[in-house]
Amino acid sequence: MPRYRFTLEYDGTPYSGWQRQRAGVPSVQAAVEKALLACTQEAVTVHTCGRTDAGVHARGQVMHVTLAKEWSAYRLMQAVNFHLKPQPVAILDARAVADDWHARFSCIGRWYLYRILCRTAPPALERDRVWAVAYSLDAEAMQEGANRLLGLHDFTSFRASLCQADSPVRTLDRLEVSRVGDEIHIVTAARSFLHHQVRNMVGTLALVGQKKWTADDVTAALDAKNRAAAGPTAPPEGLYFMGAVYPETE
Amino acid sequence: MPRYRFTLEYDGTPYSGWQRQRAGVPSVQAAVEKALLACTQEAVTVHTCGRTDAGVHARGQVMHVTLAKEWSAYRLMQAVNFHLKPQPVAILDARAVADDWHARFSCIGRWYLYRILCRTAPPALERDRVWAVAYSLDAEAMQEGANRLLGLHDFTSFRASLCQADSPVRTLDRLEVSRVGDEIHIVTAARSFLHHQVRNMVGTLALVGQKKWTADDVTAALDAKNRAAAGPTAPPEGLYFMGAVYPETE
Repeated sequence: MPRYRFTLEYDGTPYSGWQRQRAGVPSVQAAVEKALLACTQEAVTVHTCGRTDAGVHARGQVMHVTLAKEWSAYRLMQAVNFHLKPQPVAILDARAVADDWHARFSCIGRWYLYRILCRTAPPALERDRVWAVAYSLDAEAMQEGANRLLGLHDFTSFRASLCQADSPVRTLDRLEVSRVGDEIHIVTAARSFLHHQVRNMVGTLALVGQKKWTADDVTAALDAKNRAAAGPTAPPEGLYFMGAVYPETE
Repeated sequence: MPRYRFTLEYDGTPYSGWQRQRAGVPSVQAAVEKALLACTQEAVTVHTCGRTDAGVHARGQVMHVTLAKEWSAYRLMQAVNFHLKPQPVAILDARAVADDWHARFSCIGRWYLYRILCRTAPPALERDRVWAVAYSLDAEAMQEGANRLLGLHDFTSFRASLCQADSPVRTLDRLEVSRVGDEIHIVTAARSFLHHQVRNMVGTLALVGQKKWTADDVTAALDAKNRAAAGPTAPPEGLYFMGAVYPETE
């Protein structure tokens, strides 16, 4: 049966997260499945590359869907976007993929952006789009702390207690801190992440940026293999799922 | 009496514009005056550098207010920001200014940004923050057209019919078109602008970007001194009041 891969952008603010829940709880998955039903008359389940939590945004989420009927990928994208309105979800790209291509299981890399707005005034234009903090952060110090997390580690200290992954071991390929105007941007990439791993790393690096913690404290938190040893979970509104990587042979 | 200058950011989406209107019509001015009343117990009228239309945003709007009581500018900003919640308006900076300083009459320059998102998919994260068009635009061609508008001209063709300015003559100092990802950004600066001038220039340049018009057509529209000769008015949601310039002697 024909299978399609979609790249999605969404504003996570009004949703309880990606995953479909009981009726009446808004989710991105339910919005996409409803739009697909409206234009294809097929009641389908879509599969994502990575579920996002309530309030987390996406600029490059990836999912796939298998349909009974064949479509032009471009026409399917246009039809789904039409039926998604007025939801803040948009299909940016659609393409036909092989029967065995899977948004989650074929994925070999994911990357995220986290935005922190550092200023006294609350955000007016970027409300729900950034973590707004009233203090300044030292990006260089944060990068020193970030470097301690790169590579292969047991990330138990940065893993949500509800995380269902079999192993807490992950390889962190990228964790880059930069200043962009009055914002701090943190870009991170890995083959996969644990639940809340990005937000827990950001919450910890914010302690370093405030000079409450040193880079050595980050190493100590990692070595403790205990969630209570690391910093707090940064809020969801600063987090963006930016993109996923697949083998070129797809 | 002590006078204070504020720099403001706001999301123009929920407002009928800057200017206070009859009761029940939301405006940025009314929101700021209400917050000032709440924290100072003074019923005041605030004066802006330039009124914005319904749906137009600001990252650097400037206004002043005269109060009976003296305040620390920083404390005043904090108090006003507290009372502005949950309105999407924030005071980014506050400072005491001289008695004769005037947000509008002392201003010697204003600058704007206009954002056009060019892609098939509708905006999800940037909804109400960009003019979304489903076609591509040629930034280089638009810049050629823009260059025809630089300098001293009679801008009758780019002026709203309701514009109340005494003269249609203005000097356009800057009109720069650039591509930023899948957006076109147009930055413009002048001592002052006519009503709808920026949006009318953008609507005209969009015709050039689509190759429906040439740069010569822009010159012809300017020379016609007739609003009907230029392009349509671009929508408000792409426009940002970015900042105002004052003499350094202030």
